[in-house]
Amino acid sequence: MNAKELKTLFEQVRGGKISPDDAVQKLRHMPFEDLGFAKVDHHRSLRVGMPEVIFGPGKRPAHLAEIFARLAERGNNVLATRVAEDQVRAVRKKLRKAEHNDVARTLVLRQKSEKTGKGTVAIVCAGTSDVPVAEEAAVTAELMGNEISRIYDVGVAGIHRLLAHKSELSEARVLIVCAGMEGALPSVVGGLVGVPVIAVPTSVGYGASFGGLTALLGMMNSCASNVTVVNIDNGFGAAYVASMINRL
Amino acid sequence: MNAKELKTLFEQVRGGKISPDDAVQKLRHMPFEDLGFAKVDHHRSLRVGMPEVIFGPGKRPAHLAEIFARLAERGNNVLATRVAEDQVRAVRKKLRKAEHNDVARTLVLRQKSEKTGKGTVAIVCAGTSDVPVAEEAAVTAELMGNEISRIYDVGVAGIHRLLAHKSELSEARVLIVCAGMEGALPSVVGGLVGVPVIAVPTSVGYGASFGGLTALLGMMNSCASNVTVVNIDNGFGAAYVASMINRL
Amino acid sequence: MNAKELKTLFEQVRGGKISPDDAVQKLRHMPFEDLGFAKVDHHRSLRVGMPEVIFGPGKRPAHLAEIFARLAERGNNVLATRVAEDQVRAVRKKLRKAEHNDVARTLVLRQKSEKTGKGTVAIVCAGTSDVPVAEEAAVTAELMGNEISRIYDVGVAGIHRLLAHKSELSEARVLIVCAGMEGALPSVVGGLVGVPVIAVPTSVGYGASFGGLTALLGMMNSCASNVTVVNIDNGFGAAYVASMINRL
Amino acid sequence: MNAKELKTLFEQVRGGKISPDDAVQKLRHMPFEDLGFAKVDHHRSLRVGMPEVIFGPGKRPAHLAEIFARLAERGNNVLATRVAEDQVRAVRKKLRKAEHNDVARTLVLRQKSEKTGKGTVAIVCAGTSDVPVAEEAAVTAELMGNEISRIYDVGVAGIHRLLAHKSELSEARVLIVCAGMEGALPSVVGGLVGVPVIAVPTSVGYGASFGGLTALLGMMNSCASNVTVVNIDNGFGAAYVASMINRL
Amino acid sequence: MNAKELKTLFEQVRGGKISPDDAVQKLRHMPFEDLGFAKVDHHRSLRVGMPEVIFGPGKRPAHLAEIFARLAERGNNVLATRVAEDQVRAVRKKLRKAEHNDVARTLVLRQKSEKTGKGTVAIVCAGTSDVPVAEEAAVTAELMGNEISRIYDVGVAGIHRLLAHKSELSEARVLIVCAGMEGALPSVVGGLVGVPVIAVPTSVGYGASFGGLTALLGMMNSCASNVTVVNIDNGFGAAYVASMINRL
Amino acid sequence: MNAKELKTLFEQVRGGKISPDDAVQKLRHMPFEDLGFAKVDHHRSLRVGMPEVIFGPGKRPAHLAEIFARLAERGNNVLATRVAEDQVRAVRKKLRKAEHNDVARTLVLRQKSEKTGKGTVAIVCAGTSDVPVAEEAAVTAELMGNEISRIYDVGVAGIHRLLAHKSELSEARVLIVCAGMEGALPSVVGGLVGVPVIAVPTSVGYGASFGGLTALLGMMNSCASNVTVVNIDNGFGAAYVASMINRL
Amino acid sequence: MNAKELKTLFEQVRGGKISPDDAVQKLRHMPFEDLGFAKVDHHRSLRVGMPEVIFGPGKRPAHLAEIFARLAERGNNVLATRVAEDQVRAVRKKLRKAEHNDVARTLVLRQKSEKTGKGTVAIVCAGTSDVPVAEEAAVTAELMGNEISRIYDVGVAGIHRLLAHKSELSEARVLIVCAGMEGALPSVVGGLVGVPVIAVPTSVGYGASFGGLTALLGMMNSCASNVTVVNIDNGFGAAYVASMINRL
Amino acid sequence: MNAKELKTLFEQVRGGKISPDDAVQKLRHMPFEDLGFAKVDHHRSLRVGMPEVIFGPGKRPAHLAEIFARLAERGNNVLATRVAEDQVRAVRKKLRKAEHNDVARTLVLRQKSEKTGKGTVAIVCAGTSDVPVAEEAAVTAELMGNEISRIYDVGVAGIHRLLAHKSELSEARVLIVCAGMEGALPSVVGGLVGVPVIAVPTSVGYGASFGGLTALLGMMNSCASNVTVVNIDNGFGAAYVASMINRL
Repeated sequence: MNAKELKTLFEQVRGGKISPDDAVQKLRHMPFEDLGFAKVDHHRSLRVGMPEVIFGPGKRPAHLAEIFARLAERGNNVLATRVAEDQVRAVRKKLRKAEHNDVARTLVLRQKSEKTGKGTVAIVCAGTSDVPVAEEAAVTAELMGNEISRIYDVGVAGIHRLLAHKSELSEARVLIVCAGMEGALPSVVGGLVGVPVIAVPTSVGYGASFGGLTALLGMMNSCASNVTVVNIDNGFGAAYVASMINRL
Repeated sequence: MNAKELKTLFEQVRGGKISPDDAVQKLRHMPFEDLGFAKVDHHRSLRVGMPEVIFGPGKRPAHLAEIFARLAERGNNVLATRVAEDQVRAVRKKLRKAEHNDVARTLVLRQKSEKTGKGTVAIVCAGTSDVPVAEEAAVTAELMGNEISRIYDVGVAGIHRLLAHKSELSEARVLIVCAGMEGALPSVVGGLVGVPVIAVPTSVGYGASFGGLTALLGMMNSCASNVTVVNIDNGFGAAYVASMINRL
Repeated sequence: MNAKELKTLFEQVRGGKISPDDAVQKLRHMPFEDLGFAKVDHHRSLRVGMPEVIFGPGKRPAHLAEIFARLAERGNNVLATRVAEDQVRAVRKKLRKAEHNDVARTLVLRQKSEKTGKGTVAIVCAGTSDVPVAEEAAVTAELMGNEISRIYDVGVAGIHRLLAHKSELSEARVLIVCAGMEGALPSVVGGLVGVPVIAVPTSVGYGASFGGLTALLGMMNSCASNVTVVNIDNGFGAAYVASMINRL
Repeated sequence: MNAKELKTLFEQVRGGKISPDDAVQKLRHMPFEDLGFAKVDHHRSLRVGMPEVIFGPGKRPAHLAEIFARLAERGNNVLATRVAEDQVRAVRKKLRKAEHNDVARTLVLRQKSEKTGKGTVAIVCAGTSDVPVAEEAAVTAELMGNEISRIYDVGVAGIHRLLAHKSELSEARVLIVCAGMEGALPSVVGGLVGVPVIAVPTSVGYGASFGGLTALLGMMNSCASNVTVVNIDNGFGAAYVASMINRL
Repeated sequence: MNAKELKTLFEQVRGGKISPDDAVQKLRHMPFEDLGFAKVDHHRSLRVGMPEVIFGPGKRPAHLAEIFARLAERGNNVLATRVAEDQVRAVRKKLRKAEHNDVARTLVLRQKSEKTGKGTVAIVCAGTSDVPVAEEAAVTAELMGNEISRIYDVGVAGIHRLLAHKSELSEARVLIVCAGMEGALPSVVGGLVGVPVIAVPTSVGYGASFGGLTALLGMMNSCASNVTVVNIDNGFGAAYVASMINRL
Repeated sequence: MNAKELKTLFEQVRGGKISPDDAVQKLRHMPFEDLGFAKVDHHRSLRVGMPEVIFGPGKRPAHLAEIFARLAERGNNVLATRVAEDQVRAVRKKLRKAEHNDVARTLVLRQKSEKTGKGTVAIVCAGTSDVPVAEEAAVTAELMGNEISRIYDVGVAGIHRLLAHKSELSEARVLIVCAGMEGALPSVVGGLVGVPVIAVPTSVGYGASFGGLTALLGMMNSCASNVTVVNIDNGFGAAYVASMINRL
Repeated sequence: MNAKELKTLFEQVRGGKISPDDAVQKLRHMPFEDLGFAKVDHHRSLRVGMPEVIFGPGKRPAHLAEIFARLAERGNNVLATRVAEDQVRAVRKKLRKAEHNDVARTLVLRQKSEKTGKGTVAIVCAGTSDVPVAEEAAVTAELMGNEISRIYDVGVAGIHRLLAHKSELSEARVLIVCAGMEGALPSVVGGLVGVPVIAVPTSVGYGASFGGLTALLGMMNSCASNVTVVNIDNGFGAAYVASMINRL
Repeated sequence: MNAKELKTLFEQVRGGKISPDDAVQKLRHMPFEDLGFAKVDHHRSLRVGMPEVIFGPGKRPAHLAEIFARLAERGNNVLATRVAEDQVRAVRKKLRKAEHNDVARTLVLRQKSEKTGKGTVAIVCAGTSDVPVAEEAAVTAELMGNEISRIYDVGVAGIHRLLAHKSELSEARVLIVCAGMEGALPSVVGGLVGVPVIAVPTSVGYGASFGGLTALLGMMNSCASNVTVVNIDNGFGAAYVASMINRL
């Protein structure tokens, strides 16, 4: 059941074709079914009209594959992030069509394809080491129905490389900017555009970068007011919010 | 010069009425004029179509008043945040019509009034101590052309108070959620709506709240994927991004 | 010697059947016997009427097995936590009946079974990744004589899943709530019940979760006043305190 | 409406004297009334059968006095913590009988007096500087219907002073232990008793005590398993949980 | 005794006009004389050929004035930093010609004036709030014999304002870059020039800027390799090193 | 294209041999060429007249080798830092002449050899465990055209060992000082010389050394004013800045 | 009762002049008497043969004066540290002979004077700002019966000033070394002597000195093995331990 | 050359048997000889009269063995700490008599045996997991000529186990107390004895113990004034200082 079907349900209620009580019952019994080890929440998908997402780390391959398959039965797109090799194998034994992107560390089952985003989501990253995070964002944003553009390896110490992409930056309706080390890129990009910038600190760096904490703090203190921040290496989360914004 | 005038300039260039070189010159000389102690950047306003904002703390009253007045001459709305009493007096000696909100600690000069936001921005806060931050967001969002709705004092330890506002939450096109202490409210709100949530950690709390750091970290780790975070107590920044989103 | 026997001793003293001095001697010589590498303290068990517990990490399999066996001779229940595979094998070579729970990472020898808890201890966790910690708590609480109820995978971003369990929550006499990431669940649960909530931050999360520190700080700052906190991933400690409370 | 009245309501429902729907309505409309600046939640009091508590810091004297008075009208006990002089004056202008304890920094209006606690709550503190936090706990615990015993100035560097109180410690049904600096007292006390110990880190200390963080971390790592921890200086919270436990 | 005189001494030794032993004695007895409360070290001045500097905070006005005067007697330039009003008055009562700069919070006695720097030291700052730190650097660098150029209020969120100064940046022989908040400016400047950049984190910012720690960490992780960092707000130290470099 | 060629270009422009527009075109098209996975920026080399440097960690051997080879074609010196064994093999399969230094963990291709440094760069380290960082600095500084001198194993707890090298220290035009643990060496060295000292905190130490953070903080707070700091273990960065200074 | 009297007591027991039981009673009733607000522990003095010490901060003047007077009655030396002006006045109203040292912030009542230390305690400090901490140590060490020598203002950036005192350093039987900022002095001093060095980090510094934390961490990581550390600014504690050592 | 020989040298100078200059030369040329990779400093041994110590981690087995052998030639005792298996083998191939203690992770070559300590050094530890650190201290202290007594597994949660050892504690001339987790043991021990206590935080613990940081901070804040602290797990350093004290 997706957002459309839900709306249909409400219209049936409004039109008197189904009683409110029955509607409540229908909704109440629908949300989750028990797999024994985890409650699969179809509600979330329903509420935001997006594919259910499975966070890979710590899940046993067999469990992950079972959750993946159960969700796939509903006909929605399914996305698993940060997947390991053995998880990939377990899922693909069940679902041949699941696509693995080894840079982004994602596993995608595409069952629907609808462009719900109204504009382009630009995905920008500072260095080549930030690419895996940027690609997680790219795969996610694309699966969620967005046109995307990639602008990679444009760190602030070579400001002209970034400025060479100014028109692409300006054309985006929302931007995702991934950077490690000092995390300065979102501030510069934020100053160049008039739309929301979602900053993703990456764990790239060494010494006093503290696994991305320095970048995170830098981004929280951005002098550009159109910057908001998600968790370290959270390319998925950035793409999720960007998708929500791009549908508005 | 606002975004419209800028577009006009570009169309004149395209139409051959003005040479590119002259256009470049016009733009180059326009952006900032030197007040001696600070460069007032009209460009920013131009790029994002929003009023220029002055951050009060640390500025001498006379300087703040001069910057405020200079910006006011352009005919735009002007907003000063975190203003102290003596700054307020200095500005209002020059500009009688500047409105002071002592809860939000803002000073506003309204010279234009246009609803540019397409939907409602809901401003939610956890406790009464979070109200100043929420009000800074409310004043800002309203000045930037948004309908706003306030949902205050709905902390997670009394979850039914929050749920009683579920329909207002659902009607918002973008939400700003302010919370101190453990900073849990954005996660719960994020799970209730299908639109972007901008979380503002506040410095409310004591002991191990560390001036808002605990709330900030909690929000960065939100289990709701539609949550992004701005700096501690940064009600202004949250409203700024919310306004950008609400115009899309 | 357990709490009952101790009480008997004191009654013999009161009844004049044994002199206070002899009683003192008896107690003084009883407490610990030297195994060479560790002093096994039967006193603690005696004082709180609970099984002795062995913390596995860092102990050599042979030593752990010897301590385990020595304690078992007394006839009490014995619990080892965070046990590794080689430790399990070493113990079970000596004690066939020791039960291994590989999710909870516990090893249990049940020699007595008495329900000392007066009500139910509810064990709640936010996500599937928190289950190992929750299970450590469940195994411990059960061994310590409590009825338990498990309410798993009810994170705050899907608040209705939690509310669907409201009656189970209300029936508990004491609750253990395990959560990683932002650690918000205890605050919400705390607001729903009128009994003590013991919060266990877990090391689940990534990026700025800092191995559970973010959850710990969040729980320390809980806006629900009936929440107290134990160490990160300390399911055992939570169950220990819950058992003490449930006997009162 | 207190817990008893609520139970009556449910019994009326069970007895068929009132329909469930009406009961729901009654409950739904009862919980909070709008004072304009804060929602007073009578629900919380109802759920846990304790007086409503007002956290003083940051509240304007007039607002605090109004909230205080509104709550007083219901006939419950009312407690304000961390009150400043001007807040005290504002409240006492309205409510003469409110008692101010300047060590505990509390303001209490006692309208009911019922011993709901089954045993004694012992309140222990390490040094004389910890007394304000201990007293906040003492005032709170007493108002919540507990017998209390005070054991003050028994820091671990003079272990015999603590041991001299061993019988009082053993008689308590639950203990609150306040300590700053290295925060070691709860571990020692925890080892001496067989009941729950609620540890309160205090901000007492200097240098590397970091406002209580060192004590907090020490208590989280207590080697005594019957210790749980509340926030720094949170005497109120400790007493609140202790009261809940003491009623069981 | 300055560097020249010292060199003369060595040449006298080489020329046999003074025995090494006598030279050693001369040097040994020269370095510091006892004022009772502090040892004034003329050696340092001698070693690096720069004026002695007095750090104001924590020094009693009378003591500071006495140290200042004692140093002045030698004929060198004297600089006091972070001076408070009462310290300024105390010094100027003794030394009328000491110049006070209230933005830079410096007190300068100029007794020699020699351009020892070979090129220009550019002093760059991100926002108007960073000006006091930048001015401390400017006053210091000038007193130490350098041409300076000021490039203020050129934060990275308005990158074109910075780029408008590209030629001034390129002309500098060494640059000092002051920035608070995310501290990104040194990285961008470092990428634009081929000479050393000394980064000064400032305590400007709020929330998660932690008094300059965020800027400091950002600068330590700069992706531009020609950036080194000094302590928070340490405009003096930056100018000191810049002066050393500019003499080479 | 190196700095000289660039200067030639500008002189051609000044001399009218090439039009400014063509010069701009020439520069614009030169900077980076797309390898698919990373933009190789020849500009940086050009701007500072130094070899391009490749940071090894995280790069796949094949990619690293391709970048290395592409840069080598230009005829410049090439340096890869923190290289792993498999990266070394991949590069040397293509470029036999690349020299591997396994202490410094560097890979160097020397195609030009020109002494551009005017004096000596002294590289000082505290203990034998700091040698790898010091050697990274030494290899880098030498490749960048500097005379270097090594003063190793002269920690502050044996101050006479350091003082025995006083003349070598004094002869350096710029110094790089590497130290872990308490990071005190730069302060002592800084007090002995009158030239810039670049401090490199190393991750050497244990316990409360926190991977170099303690050394970093100590160096930031150095009481010697001629000390600036680079990131933990950043021998390369220190040598880079030292080279820039030594050319002035 | 001091250590001698205690020994007498034990000898009386051994000699049969007093029964063990009576001795126990005598000891049991002696240790502390209740002043209402604090338990004065004469035991501690007895155990270590040193004057009782009162830590001033947070104590009300009247209370402090009463504790001070009560202790004075026993005939021992009394020391109050970190005393404020109003505390000084309150004590001296009762005890004229109490001496106030306003640099050390101590109040001393000298009733006995016995040199119990066998050698000299050298007190060393890095800068003039560290003097108050050093003086607290000096006053304490002297009152506890030690010869002391002061070696002040010998920071590591001017190593020759320190080395000029080498013989005084070598003559000490134990050293106390106070330093703020990078806290390097104890390492250097530790390397120069063959006796114990007690390091006292001071809160002197700014920026990234974090109120003495940087110095503390540096000292914990000292490369000199004869260094131990006490809390930030804890001159008293350092002198206390030094006195214990000097009596051995 | 040891301390005695050194004294002899000085006496020869005093007696006119050797000129001061020759003595200086003798000393100057003696201190270290170059092994190529590290300067072996015999001076340190000489200054404090203790064996040279080699810190194992990070040293290649062959190098460590060579340093070990070189030192052994002088006839002193030699100690290597934190040695790994391969280092042990490398050393023992050269020096059969070197003794390996696998709990303490030490390697000892005993060539002299002289009791230089005047009393007993008690080594106390809280739990069995702290034993390796305690044993490192024990091996070191014994090698340095002290009688030692071991009091292990006496954590504060079982205070009676500690008190059972009170007489052993009282007989020590100096104590080393090792504890992880909350690090409370030194405070309790410090209160029981009148001699110096050297606290060693261990990295034992989990969750919020942060590798020993919590214990370290707790010990720094000890309420017992006779406690000083060394680095985390630094059993060697504690024994080194204890030995120095015990010789006084």
